[in-house]
Amino acid sequence: MERLLRRCRIKNRLVRECMAECLGVYVLILFGCGSAAQVTTSGEKNGQYLSINLGFALGVTFGVFVSRGVSGAHLNPAVTLSLCVLGRCSWTRLPFYTFFQVLGALLAAATVGLQYYDAIQMFGGGQLTVTGPTATAGIFSTYPADHLSLWGGIVDQTVGTAALLLCILAIGDQRNTSIPDYLQPLLAGASVLVIGISMGSNCGYPLNPARDFGPRLFTYIAGWGEEVFTAGGGWWWVPIVAPCIGAVLGVLIYELLVEVHHPLSSESRTSGQESREEKGVELEGVEPEGGKPV
Amino acid sequence: MERLLRRCRIKNRLVRECMAECLGVYVLILFGCGSAAQVTTSGEKNGQYLSINLGFALGVTFGVFVSRGVSGAHLNPAVTLSLCVLGRCSWTRLPFYTFFQVLGALLAAATVGLQYYDAIQMFGGGQLTVTGPTATAGIFSTYPADHLSLWGGIVDQTVGTAALLLCILAIGDQRNTSIPDYLQPLLAGASVLVIGISMGSNCGYPLNPARDFGPRLFTYIAGWGEEVFTAGGGWWWVPIVAPCIGAVLGVLIYELLVEVHHPLSSESRTSGQESREEKGVELEGVEPEGGKPV
Amino acid sequence: MERLLRRCRIKNRLVRECMAECLGVYVLILFGCGSAAQVTTSGEKNGQYLSINLGFALGVTFGVFVSRGVSGAHLNPAVTLSLCVLGRCSWTRLPFYTFFQVLGALLAAATVGLQYYDAIQMFGGGQLTVTGPTATAGIFSTYPADHLSLWGGIVDQTVGTAALLLCILAIGDQRNTSIPDYLQPLLAGASVLVIGISMGSNCGYPLNPARDFGPRLFTYIAGWGEEVFTAGGGWWWVPIVAPCIGAVLGVLIYELLVEVHHPLSSESRTSGQESREEKGVELEGVEPEGGKPV
Amino acid sequence: MERLLRRCRIKNRLVRECMAECLGVYVLILFGCGSAAQVTTSGEKNGQYLSINLGFALGVTFGVFVSRGVSGAHLNPAVTLSLCVLGRCSWTRLPFYTFFQVLGALLAAATVGLQYYDAIQMFGGGQLTVTGPTATAGIFSTYPADHLSLWGGIVDQTVGTAALLLCILAIGDQRNTSIPDYLQPLLAGASVLVIGISMGSNCGYPLNPARDFGPRLFTYIAGWGEEVFTAGGGWWWVPIVAPCIGAVLGVLIYELLVEVHHPLSSESRTSGQESREEKGVELEGVEPEGGKPV
Repeated sequence: MERLLRRCRIKNRLVRECMAECLGVYVLILFGCGSAAQVTTSGEKNGQYLSINLGFALGVTFGVFVSRGVSGAHLNPAVTLSLCVLGRCSWTRLPFYTFFQVLGALLAAATVGLQYYDAIQMFGGGQLTVTGPTATAGIFSTYPADHLSLWGGIVDQTVGTAALLLCILAIGDQRNTSIPDYLQPLLAGASVLVIGISMGSNCGYPLNPARDFGPRLFTYIAGWGEEVFTAGGGWWWVPIVAPCIGAVLGVLIYELLVEVHHPLSSESRTSGQESREEKGVELEGVEPEGGKPV
Repeated sequence: MERLLRRCRIKNRLVRECMAECLGVYVLILFGCGSAAQVTTSGEKNGQYLSINLGFALGVTFGVFVSRGVSGAHLNPAVTLSLCVLGRCSWTRLPFYTFFQVLGALLAAATVGLQYYDAIQMFGGGQLTVTGPTATAGIFSTYPADHLSLWGGIVDQTVGTAALLLCILAIGDQRNTSIPDYLQPLLAGASVLVIGISMGSNCGYPLNPARDFGPRLFTYIAGWGEEVFTAGGGWWWVPIVAPCIGAVLGVLIYELLVEVHHPLSSESRTSGQESREEKGVELEGVEPEGGKPV
Repeated sequence: MERLLRRCRIKNRLVRECMAECLGVYVLILFGCGSAAQVTTSGEKNGQYLSINLGFALGVTFGVFVSRGVSGAHLNPAVTLSLCVLGRCSWTRLPFYTFFQVLGALLAAATVGLQYYDAIQMFGGGQLTVTGPTATAGIFSTYPADHLSLWGGIVDQTVGTAALLLCILAIGDQRNTSIPDYLQPLLAGASVLVIGISMGSNCGYPLNPARDFGPRLFTYIAGWGEEVFTAGGGWWWVPIVAPCIGAVLGVLIYELLVEVHHPLSSESRTSGQESREEKGVELEGVEPEGGKPV
Repeated sequence: MERLLRRCRIKNRLVRECMAECLGVYVLILFGCGSAAQVTTSGEKNGQYLSINLGFALGVTFGVFVSRGVSGAHLNPAVTLSLCVLGRCSWTRLPFYTFFQVLGALLAAATVGLQYYDAIQMFGGGQLTVTGPTATAGIFSTYPADHLSLWGGIVDQTVGTAALLLCILAIGDQRNTSIPDYLQPLLAGASVLVIGISMGSNCGYPLNPARDFGPRLFTYIAGWGEEVFTAGGGWWWVPIVAPCIGAVLGVLIYELLVEVHHPLSSESRTSGQESREEKGVELEGVEPEGGKPV
């Protein structure tokens, strides 16, 4: 059996990385949107808001565990973008990573839609609606709360994604607290948990263009219709644009307030390599690796 | 005292492994079904759905801690099966492991039934019923929600168990993220937690033929009667068959998308042995060991 | 300042251990009963049953962290007793440890009583009652649910404490999974969490004679009166006797099913010493140390 | 990009430390007050009391991760004060640290105010009130419950902060249980979690003069008016004074009951340095470093 599997081995580095990003986002959305589906369709009986926070947090954790050794587990185009800005990831990777991240999210949303097909039909009385008391589109992608203005949404997502990147850079900064490789996926999940607990109320903390756009595309295709793009005053582009601004902002804040001021030392410039080698992954290629955010 | 105990020492490897699997599943079900009993009989006063998720998750964690050093802590016939398919566990172990896993689950269900005897009598008004508002059979084994079709249940359990195996293989894959032995039981528990949070609504996430069939047998014997097999349109065989399909599917997905593509390196083929030796467990026999899923 | 403190140094080993046990149980009860006080006096507004489970679990974790390096952090006469039975703790320690464990619990209950004085007065309408809708004695020690028979309570506490010891022995068994010293207090807390989630409904999972009797003594002295001993059909002795039976039972089950069957190896008999030395604690005395349960 | 950032490098140690303390408290309050804002403005729909406990706990964890390698992550003037008393931090640092801790809290409160601007307007019906059913000042700083007397509040905060320091000293005491650097921020968060669960009911567990006074100043400036200082019988000074008393008390208790009695050994006096070096942070200056509480 193992021999059979070994025949399917792909040596191209970028293909492997894209498959890993796709599977990582798939796991993230499968658990994240799954928990939203459970809470929504059970009328908060089998879970409450905290369950959704936990679902996305552990989704991130396992999504990172699934893909980290291969692609670095960005799982988020805004993260890939900010690593490109920092020069830790090559710009050519950005479109490939983004495409496969969105694809993974779309496939996962389709799986959740299949798994909760009966429940969504029952809850919505056979209708797939985007707004109102039996709306089910919010299981898959985010919509703003009634009280939220468009500018409020942009501020919210910029602050939220900046906070995410601040945490992720601190976790990965070996010269701040040196955290072992295997704990970083858990802490990345914890940072998403606390953002969901403290910044989820306004518009459901997308923080991630792929997490939001992939499932939105699924709902558009699967029968929720054009309203998924028109609802919330044409909300759909905010979770794509604002996280990218926030991610770069968060990177700048951490770099300017903490990272650049670390005293120079002989080991500081090589610590990245070391931690990579400790993991026992032999890098074969010559291409620059997609940097690891966490 | 220690000397007295030492006289009872059994040297046969398979017997030791079966005892460990039995005790591991016992712990899993004792905590898991115990938390379901607490939530059900207290009318959600002393716990809610999340408590049951935590009960099964920590049940898995401690079940794995109890048995991991001896048998590898499969605790699930579907896991044993998929390890056999992968060639990491000998096929001769499958029937023994399965039998003792079901036995452990049955004994644990009996313990929960004893411990909650007064509470179950009080809650059910002296009746042991399988359906309706005072049903208590759902404490022990799973039943589908009203909205779920049979095919929906098969899809749900196939997806759920595939997700479980995906997580477990990622946790144990030393060439992805190298996770220390002592953390893997916690992460296995976390994967069951997130599946319970995101895929528990349809039919209570059995994911494990032993977890479901052992307690169902207990309820059949202890007075709930034949309805435990007829309820839900003859639901009982789904949590036995679908997890086996899902487990193999999950293994294939992880292998094909991630594991087989890892670059070959000198250490990659021996890392399994190493981690085993780090644990300081001297293996005495010549039989192939039951592989460790986590 | 540090010099001033250093003058107070006590070299007698037993005195240090007793102070550590007292402080450890103090921390456990301060957080545990504090969380019960918060849930009760706020009418479940500032916490629910799960908060109490978390309060006792983290109380155990920090109680163990406070005392582990000095006394081994038994924090429970039933644990001390079972370690004496196993020959891992000297019998002469049993009465001293027990006395200071009860003393720590009593002092912590008094602190909680002081801290929640206003809230308890407000909630009880100025009355300190043991039963009824505004009862506050349950903040401090346990009382059986109405449905529970005396035998049911004995079974519940025997099973619960056996499960606790099963988990604790598995955590500490270096030949099963070798868990680092610093994680064991967290896992001990997690085992109390899962027992609270799965076995708390019948009589509030005392599991520990000191945890129950110390605070009960406080309520007796502080004005709740004799009813704290007569309520629940003279319940007070059950949480003292049953945990002792359960602890010894749990130890026997783990020893007979797992520990005695570990293959003998050169390092197996000395691993205890090693882990002690790794902690960097130089042992000065010649007395046998109070064994570490976790 | 990295080169551009590197130009902004500041070599002055105290400035770097103050920036780190400011950013650390910013993260703590951003997540902590953010979770309070989410629970309050959603009418407990998107979170309950436990969410606020988790928000502050994980806020502490990530605040510590952000600043620990630079300043030691006090994040609390009462902690800085008690480390000065113990001689582990220079007294000259106290005013600088305190100022930047309060500044970070104020800026974070302003960010939360901005992020939840629409929601606060909606919830308060356009009014910013300190008391009553639509009060929103409690999102930012603490106010005593109706039942609490002033002395009750002083006792509560003294006990609470003493418990916090007891936990923090135990976590950091390498001769008790030796805990790796990277786990200590998580345990510091866990100690704040359990205090919130067990001591949050009376007055919202400020425990930290900066955490309370910074956001209070923001509410005063931003339009809640003078009532933020007069409400609760002039409560505002209690969360400043009582935590300082409690912190020193907690330090004394731990030192006198546990730490001073540790047997002397060759390594005991240097373990602090070692752990610092293990982190790979080269200390360039000659000034005494701000000690690490955790």
